[in-house]
Amino acid sequence: MTYRAPINDMLLALNHGAGLQAAMEAGHYGDFDGDITAAVLEEAGKFAGDVLAPLNRVGDENGIKLNDGKVTTAPGWPDAYQRWTAAGWNAVSGPEAFGGQGLPLAINAACTEIWSASNAAFGLCPLLTLSAIEALDAHGSEELKKIYLGKLVSGQWTGTMQLTEPQAGSDVGALRTRAERAADGSYRIKGTKIFITYGDHDMTDNIVHFVLARLPDAPAGTKGISLFLIPKFLVNADGSLGQRNDIYPSGIEHKLGMHASPTCTMTMGDHGGAIGYLIGEENRGMLCMFTMMNQARLGVGLEGVGIADRAYQQALAYAQDRRQGRAIGKKGDGSDAIIVHPDVKRMLMQMRALTAAARTICYATAVALDVSVRAKDPKTRADAAARGALLTPIAKAFSTDIGNEVAYLGVQIHGGMGFIEETGAAQYSRDARITSIYEGTNGIQSIDLVTRKLAANGGEAVWALLGELTEIVIRVETSNDPAFGTTGAKLRDALNSLDRTSRWLLERVTSAPNEALAGATPYLRLFGATLGGCVLAGEALAARDASEGDPERYVTLARFFAENISVQAASLERTVIDSAEAVNGADAVLLA
Amino acid sequence: MTYRAPINDMLLALNHGAGLQAAMEAGHYGDFDGDITAAVLEEAGKFAGDVLAPLNRVGDENGIKLNDGKVTTAPGWPDAYQRWTAAGWNAVSGPEAFGGQGLPLAINAACTEIWSASNAAFGLCPLLTLSAIEALDAHGSEELKKIYLGKLVSGQWTGTMQLTEPQAGSDVGALRTRAERAADGSYRIKGTKIFITYGDHDMTDNIVHFVLARLPDAPAGTKGISLFLIPKFLVNADGSLGQRNDIYPSGIEHKLGMHASPTCTMTMGDHGGAIGYLIGEENRGMLCMFTMMNQARLGVGLEGVGIADRAYQQALAYAQDRRQGRAIGKKGDGSDAIIVHPDVKRMLMQMRALTAAARTICYATAVALDVSVRAKDPKTRADAAARGALLTPIAKAFSTDIGNEVAYLGVQIHGGMGFIEETGAAQYSRDARITSIYEGTNGIQSIDLVTRKLAANGGEAVWALLGELTEIVIRVETSNDPAFGTTGAKLRDALNSLDRTSRWLLERVTSAPNEALAGATPYLRLFGATLGGCVLAGEALAARDASEGDPERYVTLARFFAENISVQAASLERTVIDSAEAVNGADAVLLA
Repeated sequence: MTYRAPINDMLLALNHGAGLQAAMEAGHYGDFDGDITAAVLEEAGKFAGDVLAPLNRVGDENGIKLNDGKVTTAPGWPDAYQRWTAAGWNAVSGPEAFGGQGLPLAINAACTEIWSASNAAFGLCPLLTLSAIEALDAHGSEELKKIYLGKLVSGQWTGTMQLTEPQAGSDVGALRTRAERAADGSYRIKGTKIFITYGDHDMTDNIVHFVLARLPDAPAGTKGISLFLIPKFLVNADGSLGQRNDIYPSGIEHKLGMHASPTCTMTMGDHGGAIGYLIGEENRGMLCMFTMMNQARLGVGLEGVGIADRAYQQALAYAQDRRQGRAIGKKGDGSDAIIVHPDVKRMLMQMRALTAAARTICYATAVALDVSVRAKDPKTRADAAARGALLTPIAKAFSTDIGNEVAYLGVQIHGGMGFIEETGAAQYSRDARITSIYEGTNGIQSIDLVTRKLAANGGEAVWALLGELTEIVIRVETSNDPAFGTTGAKLRDALNSLDRTSRWLLERVTSAPNEALAGATPYLRLFGATLGGCVLAGEALAARDASEGDPERYVTLARFFAENISVQAASLERTVIDSAEAVNGADAVLLA
Repeated sequence: MTYRAPINDMLLALNHGAGLQAAMEAGHYGDFDGDITAAVLEEAGKFAGDVLAPLNRVGDENGIKLNDGKVTTAPGWPDAYQRWTAAGWNAVSGPEAFGGQGLPLAINAACTEIWSASNAAFGLCPLLTLSAIEALDAHGSEELKKIYLGKLVSGQWTGTMQLTEPQAGSDVGALRTRAERAADGSYRIKGTKIFITYGDHDMTDNIVHFVLARLPDAPAGTKGISLFLIPKFLVNADGSLGQRNDIYPSGIEHKLGMHASPTCTMTMGDHGGAIGYLIGEENRGMLCMFTMMNQARLGVGLEGVGIADRAYQQALAYAQDRRQGRAIGKKGDGSDAIIVHPDVKRMLMQMRALTAAARTICYATAVALDVSVRAKDPKTRADAAARGALLTPIAKAFSTDIGNEVAYLGVQIHGGMGFIEETGAAQYSRDARITSIYEGTNGIQSIDLVTRKLAANGGEAVWALLGELTEIVIRVETSNDPAFGTTGAKLRDALNSLDRTSRWLLERVTSAPNEALAGATPYLRLFGATLGGCVLAGEALAARDASEGDPERYVTLARFFAENISVQAASLERTVIDSAEAVNGADAVLLA
């Protein structure tokens, strides 16, 4: 079966759960016309369903090949990429000065979900290009922008981000790739990078690599890292392609999932050194990386959402088709579709509720990032920047955690068929697995949440968010809608747990950092469980207010989330607070 | 790295957590000499580490092949199987009258964990043979036993269990394979079975298939199913192999994991029908299946434990070796092993604690099954049978759920390397995935727990178990050992939640079955989280009493489980009770 973008759910999440409509009404989006949102998403959904989704299994089965220093992608992929860029999809939120459509990040976030859902390994390629665009736009010289930015925005060329080396993963500061100054103002780079996504491929005629390296006289650690733009083919003055640069894929990885996405070892310097151009200032490469980290992490979170939704759609279809056993109370011959069984209903609801919550958290992050650069008022921008910074690790980690959980349940609903690769359910699970690892592992996200985001300005961004969420809970309580069940009580308890736990961590983040860090992962989950429940409740209220379609379905979904996920808040609070001692005493167990 | 059986942990779990020592002291194990347990496990661990573990990746990478109606296993596998049976490992708990060693199931359970940990796809083969032995021993004619049982006990021949057909998975009663009576008292069987584990292979010269089929005049559903023994090669009167029987592997599955284990489509009847012999009575095949279901399900639970332990061992070694970043407070150059980071410690503790709890739950199930056939007193036997029946679905589902969770965390600890197949961490995750599906999905186990095991005799088996667990909690509380932290309080709360939730479900299992079924999965988790916490606390107390080695490590482990897993009991209770309405109203969401 193909993929259908859940347009109604996405619009509700975007406009109401994530606050796009309110931000537009407040004037933060300038002259952006919100009426086009639905049309954009429908077109994206149609392209994804028609072109990308059918290539998903093809890519998984064929994988990619490396021969004679060149990577070949799966059959049909280069053509699909050409069609995708020709339709303008790479340029949705790109800068207008360089041919982009300048649409909000929030719109592109919804599109990113769609590409990831239809074909995660395909959608990964433009995610890297977007990061490259962001780095170049924010920190590149006008000359470099003139040559490269337009082609990256259109997608005529793709981008890579090259940080990782064997000894330098989460610990970026340990990298060893060397850059030397050349007489002409450019640099010669030598070294080896690993795990480079789309490090080489045959979908475009050039690739623009963004590589972190260290100058000979650079300080140790992250303060001695510089960012370089290294084109696969040098570009002549007239814009035509010149000589092949000294950066080659020297190996590809045999991975659990994302088979169609080339993960390359990149070698620079076998022929004298790759010619590179400095982005930003020398030794300030980490600063350039940080500016684009929010968007890149949000992009990975959206992969989690997309894969989850795809897994859900396939599991739902299977559960409506597969007949085994009878519904309770039904007699006689024949069997019922397995969706009649409460246990299957529970799994499907779990999948859908987790996906919907993660979707809105991601979209809300995008709206915050939009407002942080689009609003006129500096205070509004600063608050939105703080909100975006706070939400980013949650968007990344919660969404990819649930991406894995949902894909797992998708396999489970298929029973034995789920274990058979041809069914396709297992692929979602395999593809999702990397999303909680790359672009900063989810452990790193949790640490970022506690030590930087919560800790900033005495927790100001957290308290502001909790205040808004409390407003939603009050509206749930005063709605007196029995269909909400115990939603109001569950969310109020969760907010109280999140508030207390935040304060407990804040007290320790400097004075007893190991205690705070021991609780980082359950704290992020607590945050996601609480925030997710509140935003879904907010969407249900908005659906009731609009009275369109069948608002009660959103109420039931919000209720399910509150009673199954948000309800875990109290135990997560206890885990953060009570178990730090056992975690930090773990050596006695682990090393005995 | 190879696998090392955690002998000390296993002995503590077996003797104290699972109650083997108490059962021996009560005389339920007759003249079984408990002193040999350690020696058996050590020998098993040595064989597994030396012979089976090195073949685990080989099997995953090479998989199996089907050519000309014959399955070929991976290089080295037939030889390893010969060595394994020659060393007597297939016969550990087999009946002495047929060459078995007659050791307790509990000992074989620990061995099963060892085989699964070292090489899950290998260990799966004897699991099926054990089921075949059980069916034949309990229900077969003396004539059939004489020909087949000894060779199955020694492992000279392997067994298969053939239930599943395309339209008959969880719904066994829907099967269509036909058996017709022949003049000589045997039967001719025609039909197709799917997902047949080790349906064909080259490790032994004969295979004994146990096949469910339907006689022409059989009633519909499960009451019309008969069990047949169908040898791959017919056996002559002198025991030599005769003609090839009409049962052939006609296809093999391309699976997510367990690549080395052939999963076959078996076709019977292309050459006139497979010659089969009735086991038990006509139309009573389900009865025969039920008698062996407890052991088979326990065996799959032990696969979960084994894979979890292996994933843990590899992740622990990696975390001690991989250097990234610095411990909090450490300055200067260099980096520390990632095990210094609290978030990594947390993941390792989660892995170890979940594995230890599941291990003891499985071993306790084995002890109960042992006592149910070994004790002299009928009341003791009946109580033990009820205990074994109650624990079986928990042993199966909780252990395989956590097997997947632990393998997932194992990948996570490896970071980007975890996604690379050569690392091996991903294989545990792929292999584990089937364990929560086959031998009755974990949803089916949860339903079995609520509707059959909890509901039996008004919950009698549950109340008896809760009583025993409460004794452990009292001992934790009166120990006044501060190292237990909040363990006592957490376990007491969990027991109260389990008690209330059990009563709530019991009230509804007949009167409002869809409400009870909606909570089946969270109820099983609640049961596992409570039981697991209590048995680990019991082991910690036993280790303290013995004062050998370093008992505090078991106290810390029990504390971690209580404060991270058992603490979820309250929210699971609310989920069972509050969310039944949203689950049963799911159609409004799912089918909108």
